[in-house]
Amino acid sequence: MTIATVGLLHPGAMGVTVGAAVRAPVRVVWASEGRSRETRTRAAGAGFEDLGTLAAVTAAADAVLSVCPPHGALALAEAVAATGFDGLYLDANAVSPATALEIAEAAAAGGARFVDGGIIGPPAVRPGTTRLYLSGDAAPELAALFEDSALEAIDLKVENGSASALKMCYAGFTKGSAALLLSLRAAASAYGVEAGLLGEWSRSQPGLEKRSVRAAATTAPKAWRFAGEMEEIASTLEAAGLPAGFHRAAAEAYAQLAGFRGEPEGVTVEDVLTALLDGGPLTKDEKGRPRKAALIP
Amino acid sequence: MTIATVGLLHPGAMGVTVGAAVRAPVRVVWASEGRSRETRTRAAGAGFEDLGTLAAVTAAADAVLSVCPPHGALALAEAVAATGFDGLYLDANAVSPATALEIAEAAAAGGARFVDGGIIGPPAVRPGTTRLYLSGDAAPELAALFEDSALEAIDLKVENGSASALKMCYAGFTKGSAALLLSLRAAASAYGVEAGLLGEWSRSQPGLEKRSVRAAATTAPKAWRFAGEMEEIASTLEAAGLPAGFHRAAAEAYAQLAGFRGEPEGVTVEDVLTALLDGGPLTKDEKGRPRKAALIP
Repeated sequence: MTIATVGLLHPGAMGVTVGAAVRAPVRVVWASEGRSRETRTRAAGAGFEDLGTLAAVTAAADAVLSVCPPHGALALAEAVAATGFDGLYLDANAVSPATALEIAEAAAAGGARFVDGGIIGPPAVRPGTTRLYLSGDAAPELAALFEDSALEAIDLKVENGSASALKMCYAGFTKGSAALLLSLRAAASAYGVEAGLLGEWSRSQPGLEKRSVRAAATTAPKAWRFAGEMEEIASTLEAAGLPAGFHRAAAEAYAQLAGFRGEPEGVTVEDVLTALLDGGPLTKDEKGRPRKAALIP
Repeated sequence: MTIATVGLLHPGAMGVTVGAAVRAPVRVVWASEGRSRETRTRAAGAGFEDLGTLAAVTAAADAVLSVCPPHGALALAEAVAATGFDGLYLDANAVSPATALEIAEAAAAGGARFVDGGIIGPPAVRPGTTRLYLSGDAAPELAALFEDSALEAIDLKVENGSASALKMCYAGFTKGSAALLLSLRAAASAYGVEAGLLGEWSRSQPGLEKRSVRAAATTAPKAWRFAGEMEEIASTLEAAGLPAGFHRAAAEAYAQLAGFRGEPEGVTVEDVLTALLDGGPLTKDEKGRPRKAALIP
């Protein structure tokens, strides 16, 4: 099968770099209906062709690339299938293998062939930073689209769903440990021992203080869509008989930070700790900071 | 108050170094009743005086140092109080501030003054590796015991319970992230993408593979007592209105590794992943390894 036209759903911060990585002379089309002005600006800047509606995109495209927040991935596949799309459908989203199966079934209901994908790394602006892992029989056709681009496509050459599993296990540590670290620094703040914790970190865990500051700045603006990803990771572990609680807790923490959506970079760790502790049951001191009650009166 | 005699409960791997750090000429006594042969050998090697029973120790001691697994800390304080001990009682265990309060109340019921402590670092064999954090009014008296020793005593100069809070927040990341990392590598193994995960780690998270190997070797033999500590950390976060699930999950993972108790160093990461996945609901392949069912038949 020759892929002459690719439908990109949607040109978000990550998606626009995926579309830009598609090799020439493949045409990249998208649907502006219902999308934000930021997305329109991004897509125009990248030279993608706006066909207006989802139906127009799927009618024109040989392959559809789904790049969206995990909580919207299944609904998007269903919407595409409803248009009767029977080409190649890539789900490149941060979903569990079980959700990938549901998405595969939804895509197949419209007649499409499914490819499972998982993106690891930041938006693929510079080569070497970002991988698109692929699994399933049709992975080589998709991988060929990205040859010599800033997005390195890697065919895992294993059964469908594996690329999603890999993404879950990878993000489970990077994003899971960031939530863990921020929650523990928040606890130290609540108990009045943040300075003590930072002092001990500086002696035996050099790097953790900086890591907590960076975790706050980088995760807070994206936390609104991490909660869904954490739930997908929790389900992935649960299905393997492993503890799901790490990522259910991370989902709680990121949900608590959803208000930072769209904040410019530069959210401080203090802002994040305050948000994490908002509404907690500890008493507050005269400055409104949460503090534990004295243990021994 | 002059501390002439210290009662050490008990000379475990950590405790023996705490007793050895007590400055001369303070006498260190302990109670061999019900303790293992390993503990007797350790105590004899360190030159501690065996008074046989707990009652004999508390009758002789001006201060009692409790160094034991967290799940036994409250019962030990109650047992000491039952002997009528009215000296200085240090709880140096990995317990939540709330548990520290219970221990304080138990100790006070016998007439003792309570000092809250938390040990961070390995057994204090070499100077510079290990800190004994202390909080509460009587902290300076305790700290003086360890002047110029391999165990650095640090008075946090904040309210009682804070040393426990600091220990919880610190161990919550070191031991919590180790359990998280091992659980995710186990998930990758279960889904057949461990090689893919290690490949991606080698590119974007250098150090994580080694860290998982080290986490397996260092945590597995001690996991039997980490489960209780993780529960204490979960309660610490919960009381501050933060997610408790990280450490409930870590407790599950460590409980699954309890069978490695007493294993010599050198537990492999493969052994640990197998133990974590034991009994999981995934199907098994022809070699008995857990594998997910193919997503797309």
